[in-house]
Amino acid sequence: MDTSTPHTAARDDGLDAFDNAPIGVFDSGYGGLTVMREIMAALPEEDIVYVGDSARCPYGPRDLDEVRSFVRQICRVLVGRGCKLIVIACNTATAAGLEAAQREFSVPVIGVVEPGARAAAMTTRNRRVGVVATRATVDSNAYADAIRHIDAGITVFSSAAPRFVEIAELGIRMAEGPFESYLSEASKVYIRPEFEEIAREYLEPLRRCDIDTLVLGCTHYPLLKALIGGVVGRDVTLISSAEETCRDVAEILRRRRAFARPGNVAAYEFLTTGDDVAEFAQFGGRVLNMDLARARHLDLPPL
Amino acid sequence: MDTSTPHTAARDDGLDAFDNAPIGVFDSGYGGLTVMREIMAALPEEDIVYVGDSARCPYGPRDLDEVRSFVRQICRVLVGRGCKLIVIACNTATAAGLEAAQREFSVPVIGVVEPGARAAAMTTRNRRVGVVATRATVDSNAYADAIRHIDAGITVFSSAAPRFVEIAELGIRMAEGPFESYLSEASKVYIRPEFEEIAREYLEPLRRCDIDTLVLGCTHYPLLKALIGGVVGRDVTLISSAEETCRDVAEILRRRRAFARPGNVAAYEFLTTGDDVAEFAQFGGRVLNMDLARARHLDLPPL
Repeated sequence: MDTSTPHTAARDDGLDAFDNAPIGVFDSGYGGLTVMREIMAALPEEDIVYVGDSARCPYGPRDLDEVRSFVRQICRVLVGRGCKLIVIACNTATAAGLEAAQREFSVPVIGVVEPGARAAAMTTRNRRVGVVATRATVDSNAYADAIRHIDAGITVFSSAAPRFVEIAELGIRMAEGPFESYLSEASKVYIRPEFEEIAREYLEPLRRCDIDTLVLGCTHYPLLKALIGGVVGRDVTLISSAEETCRDVAEILRRRRAFARPGNVAAYEFLTTGDDVAEFAQFGGRVLNMDLARARHLDLPPL
Repeated sequence: MDTSTPHTAARDDGLDAFDNAPIGVFDSGYGGLTVMREIMAALPEEDIVYVGDSARCPYGPRDLDEVRSFVRQICRVLVGRGCKLIVIACNTATAAGLEAAQREFSVPVIGVVEPGARAAAMTTRNRRVGVVATRATVDSNAYADAIRHIDAGITVFSSAAPRFVEIAELGIRMAEGPFESYLSEASKVYIRPEFEEIAREYLEPLRRCDIDTLVLGCTHYPLLKALIGGVVGRDVTLISSAEETCRDVAEILRRRRAFARPGNVAAYEFLTTGDDVAEFAQFGGRVLNMDLARARHLDLPPL
């Protein structure tokens, strides 16, 4: 149990109702940027440290024990930088390492599965919920288990969408035009007929199951909201795990009286374990609609 | 799976963004009135049907299978009255019957354990959480399991308070003075030295465990907030399961777009399975600070 961060010690007097320490967000690569984007929009005064473990991306095909050791390693980095809360913004990493990280560190650690699952359980009217996710996440049953833990009467239908991450990243890379409009430009890329056909293949089986709620069970997928929403239709409510996780972040900070002091000018730090920092900065900058010129390489400590 | 209530059918068009159907709340006796009180305050336009199963109270010492059959039976009554959502406002009934009720009925059914557990997990800073509850609830481990399911790094300390229900009810019965002030009068009863001594006996062990958050794990206990808070001190945040459950009710109605139409004048129905309706009306009226003259006896359908 880590209890030694100066930050935690400073809070123990129980008097300070604010906390300017950063929020830590990490993912195996870029997907977690959608969670970061939600936090930046909802809590604009919070400092954030983002770590993308691009050097070892993707986590999906790896052994769970290995991913768990990555999660603990990166959490150590974030705790070492004084983070007051850590978001594991990656489904595979959540499934593999959330519990271990919660046991090891004294700051709260949350994942992306539980918030999305709870929102879906609260939203569905006909109690038929779809989950679209990567193959690894679907196979883990993480969302189905979490949803049925909350409401045993809900039927969950899952569909793996192996090419959605690739399409989401392709759109960001292909987008052209002025800086501010990459995301809207990317949206145009996403709704191309060839991508719609792929989306239909993944989502048509869920539609046929008469779902009224669909969980976007991968942090990349909020980028594809227009594409996915177009295919499933307006009767199906889309649940963004990124958005719901951000709501939990806000709720935890509120309850712990740990928001940044009002007026704090948020500082963002971008770290990648990969070697191509320029590529990371360019891609991340497009997703977050901001200049990531100061992105840096992170040398990982020993596992 | 019940799908036949006219109410549910009416919702299926997906168009109506309001729903004037009542919320159903039930408990083995009076405790659930604290949940009802929170809902009345937070959602003043919602109709509510309250069932107190006084004839078979308390549930605590009964076999879980028997309690489960009571839960299903009373949910059938509430669904039959068109309830759009059911709150099992009793810890024993939640532990015994929540899952079965969720599987059987098409309306959402929620309990009191999960909302209180989640609030505690989000609130604690030192990750040491206390739970005070009846002997049956403590022995079920329901809160400890639920809290550690959310955050595996939290240590939970539980203490059974067998006499708190009796003290809570005694205060309500002993209170004198004008109608509006029964609760404040009851508070004076609760902080008598002899009750404080009992509270200290239950709570001192939790205080010594250095908890910073305490779950009031019985729906009666919000009545004893002043007594309990006085003993544990201001550094310990009290979590009222009643209040947190009410927050979940609001969140579910919001997400399902199922609030009562604005301007609805809330109707309240009070049903007791016991024979002494006058006693039920008098006691409930004091807790809710309103006239329950129209409380009625409920003949239960066959199990």
